[in-house]
Amino acid sequence: MKTYLDCLPCLLNQALRAGRIATADERKIKRLLDEVGRMLESIPLDSTPPESANLIYQKVKEITGNIDPYKELKIESTQKALTLYPSLKRQVEESKDKLLTAIRIAIAGNVIDFGVNKTFDIDKEIDEALKKDFGICHYNAFTKCLDEVNDVLFIGDNAGESVFDRILIEQMKKPTLYAVRGMPVINDATYEDAVQAGIDKVATIISSGTSAPGTILKTCNAEFKKVYKKSKFIISKGQGNYEGLSNEKRPIFFMLKAKCHVIANDIGVDEGDIVLKKASIL
Amino acid sequence: MKTYLDCLPCLLNQALRAGRIATADERKIKRLLDEVGRMLESIPLDSTPPESANLIYQKVKEITGNIDPYKELKIESTQKALTLYPSLKRQVEESKDKLLTAIRIAIAGNVIDFGVNKTFDIDKEIDEALKKDFGICHYNAFTKCLDEVNDVLFIGDNAGESVFDRILIEQMKKPTLYAVRGMPVINDATYEDAVQAGIDKVATIISSGTSAPGTILKTCNAEFKKVYKKSKFIISKGQGNYEGLSNEKRPIFFMLKAKCHVIANDIGVDEGDIVLKKASIL
Repeated sequence: MKTYLDCLPCLLNQALRAGRIATADERKIKRLLDEVGRMLESIPLDSTPPESANLIYQKVKEITGNIDPYKELKIESTQKALTLYPSLKRQVEESKDKLLTAIRIAIAGNVIDFGVNKTFDIDKEIDEALKKDFGICHYNAFTKCLDEVNDVLFIGDNAGESVFDRILIEQMKKPTLYAVRGMPVINDATYEDAVQAGIDKVATIISSGTSAPGTILKTCNAEFKKVYKKSKFIISKGQGNYEGLSNEKRPIFFMLKAKCHVIANDIGVDEGDIVLKKASIL
Repeated sequence: MKTYLDCLPCLLNQALRAGRIATADERKIKRLLDEVGRMLESIPLDSTPPESANLIYQKVKEITGNIDPYKELKIESTQKALTLYPSLKRQVEESKDKLLTAIRIAIAGNVIDFGVNKTFDIDKEIDEALKKDFGICHYNAFTKCLDEVNDVLFIGDNAGESVFDRILIEQMKKPTLYAVRGMPVINDATYEDAVQAGIDKVATIISSGTSAPGTILKTCNAEFKKVYKKSKFIISKGQGNYEGLSNEKRPIFFMLKAKCHVIANDIGVDEGDIVLKKASIL
């Protein structure tokens, strides 16, 4: 997905929120906003938003000196999600279509996102995601493709959300590689976060190598790119991965909640919609 | 009111919205955002937000070549407000406290604001403003002061809103000077807008001389400053005038709807609250 003009004020807002989480020093935050303001003109609109966001969050680290501002929030998110795990498993077991319920739960987990300008109520979100209609739901294509493949590449998004992903991985019952970010950025899941979520018990965790809040292939490591190229079934969770991969000609299923109007418009759904969308080649 | 860090991304958002209203040329809007981004570092946090907004909206005019992008929207707002005038007058006449109802109506009109990042439904707003509790309501001080003075300085805010102000002016029954901006900025009322609203039939319209979307005294003309200094009863409508005058030691009553959380926090009310607040010296 390209960068829209609306993304530019959003990037400045993201810098402000991240700056406030990283430091209490208002002068540093002002300096951060000044520098991000100056950076805007070097952002080409044909780059993807996470590429630009990557530069912004590097600037947050550089100016505040805090290399992992969201660390505590990430640990808390995962702890909270783990307390929900038993009841979520029960809901899957008691449902008519267990796989679809697991998908709905994985999408509900996508609301744990500190990059987007919203607060969230995870219990309410789960309740809603279990009931509401999908904006787009390519579930038939999903089950058909899944039946035909031997393994899955699952590209994770946020810490905490990984617990919800685990439920879907358990339900798919296929050998799975679970890709995480190469280093901390916003509240995106890294290796440690995925282990805390128990992903290591159900999948093999690999690092994509990127420090961007989304899958920007040119910033990923060789191992990930190799796996990605040969994979026949890829799940891409969340907005950042969608933004990076939406134009790819690969067998990808995008799963997300459309949390901003720009992405909702790009996908062709309403803001707030839940989405299971196959890539154009499928 | 000082400029808060939150105002900086908001200024960039305002530039984007104004740019889109002024031109359909995306390259010009990108250039506008680039330039506004660069300007952020020169904005001192001890200046008031309308001072900074003034620079932004001048930049919108300069880059898009459109000196009055909101002209049509202003005319339409006033036309719409004029169709509501008879029923609003009736509501005042039928109410127990006519002056308080006229104040509520004047505040309802303050929702007609294209500078703030919200859409609005004027009929719903009127209905709400007639019923809801005030966040702050210094009505007793207002009536007491009004009884003691011979005339009123009424500092208007937006086009369309002036029709609602007219109802309050008619109800106060005091000779009134109605101040408007010196030139077009966002949808703020200028001389022509006030005349279209029929203010000339109930008050003397004067120009404050400013091109800022708020009353920044140092940018006002000598005539306005003279009137302002000797006035014993001043009504300041809306956020922009509040931002410019909130620290003034003058007999001012601020009337507004708190449409952004930064201003709501500064006043000490919740976002969305309606406010009738006396200045600190009263």
